[in-house]
Amino acid sequence: MTHFFDADFKLGVLGGGQLGRMLIEAGGPLNIWFSMLDPAADAPCAHIAHEFVQGSFDDYETVLAFGRDKSVITVEIEHVSVPALKQLKKQGKWVYPSPEILEIVQDKGQQKQFFENHGIPTSKFELFDSGSEALQSFGTPCVLKLRKGGYDGRGVMVIKDTHSALPLFDTPVVAEEKVDILKELSVIVSRNASGQTSVFPSVEMYFNSEANLVELLFSPANISPHQEQQAQELGLRVAEAFNLVGIMAVEMFLTPEGTLLVNEVAPRPHNSGHHSIEANITSQYQQHLRALLNLPPGDTALRTPAAMANLLGAKGHDGPVFYQGLEQALATTGVFVHLYGKSHTKPFRKMGHITALANTSEEACAKAQTAARAISVRSSR
Amino acid sequence: MTHFFDADFKLGVLGGGQLGRMLIEAGGPLNIWFSMLDPAADAPCAHIAHEFVQGSFDDYETVLAFGRDKSVITVEIEHVSVPALKQLKKQGKWVYPSPEILEIVQDKGQQKQFFENHGIPTSKFELFDSGSEALQSFGTPCVLKLRKGGYDGRGVMVIKDTHSALPLFDTPVVAEEKVDILKELSVIVSRNASGQTSVFPSVEMYFNSEANLVELLFSPANISPHQEQQAQELGLRVAEAFNLVGIMAVEMFLTPEGTLLVNEVAPRPHNSGHHSIEANITSQYQQHLRALLNLPPGDTALRTPAAMANLLGAKGHDGPVFYQGLEQALATTGVFVHLYGKSHTKPFRKMGHITALANTSEEACAKAQTAARAISVRSSR
Repeated sequence: MTHFFDADFKLGVLGGGQLGRMLIEAGGPLNIWFSMLDPAADAPCAHIAHEFVQGSFDDYETVLAFGRDKSVITVEIEHVSVPALKQLKKQGKWVYPSPEILEIVQDKGQQKQFFENHGIPTSKFELFDSGSEALQSFGTPCVLKLRKGGYDGRGVMVIKDTHSALPLFDTPVVAEEKVDILKELSVIVSRNASGQTSVFPSVEMYFNSEANLVELLFSPANISPHQEQQAQELGLRVAEAFNLVGIMAVEMFLTPEGTLLVNEVAPRPHNSGHHSIEANITSQYQQHLRALLNLPPGDTALRTPAAMANLLGAKGHDGPVFYQGLEQALATTGVFVHLYGKSHTKPFRKMGHITALANTSEEACAKAQTAARAISVRSSR
Repeated sequence: MTHFFDADFKLGVLGGGQLGRMLIEAGGPLNIWFSMLDPAADAPCAHIAHEFVQGSFDDYETVLAFGRDKSVITVEIEHVSVPALKQLKKQGKWVYPSPEILEIVQDKGQQKQFFENHGIPTSKFELFDSGSEALQSFGTPCVLKLRKGGYDGRGVMVIKDTHSALPLFDTPVVAEEKVDILKELSVIVSRNASGQTSVFPSVEMYFNSEANLVELLFSPANISPHQEQQAQELGLRVAEAFNLVGIMAVEMFLTPEGTLLVNEVAPRPHNSGHHSIEANITSQYQQHLRALLNLPPGDTALRTPAAMANLLGAKGHDGPVFYQGLEQALATTGVFVHLYGKSHTKPFRKMGHITALANTSEEACAKAQTAARAISVRSSR
């Protein structure tokens, strides 16, 4: 058996964005050798991976060739070539998460069916061949989601009534009941090949409706101990249902009636776990590595309440990046700045994030927002 | 002015060992571009630096050429070419710590004279051209130290009496009074070009007398609040005396009478600050970077008591490394494993370290030692 510290051990990652970057950072203390595959020559991992291969993670031949000399293969994005991963698995490679999980998750229709088939609470839904068909049959208000290809809120539409004059998706969609949402939560779970699991304290998320991105999140979530326990148990149930090896973010809605509904899952490190780098005893990134390498899971406990705010490219700025106001953020106790190494900024592009630690979630949120507002991600001075 | 996030910013580091490695890890979130100069092709930084130059950091031409395209130049080892750094400074490069500090620190004789000239308490000493001369004139018991070239306890001899049949140094030495030592402390201080300083809570160290290496250290030190304040003030006085830019470990003796004496300093990240990665709000590595880049210093407060144990190569093992027992250490709450990426182990070689966090220093020490003992750094399975 190959150990991660052996000279010939190679971890291959499909995708080389900020999640991959923070995975590399987490692997540093364990001296894990990383190779990343990404189409962008200036991807966040390009200059920090041990090996960087420029190419498409969605292309069968490219992924197959990439995987050839790797000991373990994982992903930091879901939109990868599942057939290539199935082939690599057949060849005896360790592919985590399994291609089967990725196949389900890539299709929001299959994902919802999976939840239904495994008794995982989720909102009512139906599958349709197009948005207009859904609108006719499903009724409003509803949420339409592209079955494939959406990300970061792209490919999601909230339809208020049948008179909505929105240009509708003309490809297969999931129509979902528009449930009342009291809170949006995320629970990160891990499981290794030996079946050892872990679950992180839940995270509460606020979305920026203009950018349709997580604007602010904090942990612990402001829910009762009973709800916290239920959320963690539900997260673990989902991981077990998927027979997961790796890490998974389980996004949930908490309804005003106190019901938890699973919205969707991501079988990889997730935006809602960035704060764990400083806030939890073990970060989501190290936990993912531990799961991949069949090492025991680390303690997920929060060391202190925390909040995370994304640093998005300023509106109207498109070009080589300049960060204004970093000094102020860096001078604030308990504020941690993460820049992703993207040389080019665009409006709402995720360029970095801020984590703030404090004695309470509220204080941490205020600190993270103040720090994030002090920083302006611009394309000129 | 160049900012650290500009595309053309380059930080050059003389030395590419574990200290450089952890400096790179600390620079990840700020996306700092690193180039390391080290003679060993398989140095711990070789595969993780953005640029790695194989060459001697003690060679004038090599260092001059290395520094040519760098924005800021620093060190992770003291034994570097001071004339080359002086030349680079003359050319307008930012060289931190200054070549003048390195020149003093490279020579333990000059270092002691510097302390004396600046009213910094230190043990009595005299300089001699050889060990035998020292023994004749200085008296015993005493400590003889090579003025140049010693490290990690090499080049240090404790002489109990004049009848000691030890092979003595025949090059210039410092003879120092053998003071009674109650505790050995280290205080890490930083200062940026704007003169902003910071000081870390002091660290208490235990040495392994066989390996002559720090075996275990913990923070906060087990001293009174008054002594803690005195130690921190003394550390800051030393930094100011040196007109430091960067970080400096100030090693001190606390005598049974309660006097603090500065033993020696290291103007770079230091073994006694490893625990700060997980234990302090800001690590010594990030603090060094902040000082170099003239950013505000981060909060140095301990988040929780911590202990650090070095992982040394096992006796009798010389060859490709194999780590036995990592799982047990990784399964312990609050234990953090750092491997330095050295492919070859040798007896007592520093191969990594363990940091343990706990509610008290005592508990942290016990946990770090248990974890370090669980791991055996071997050359075969």
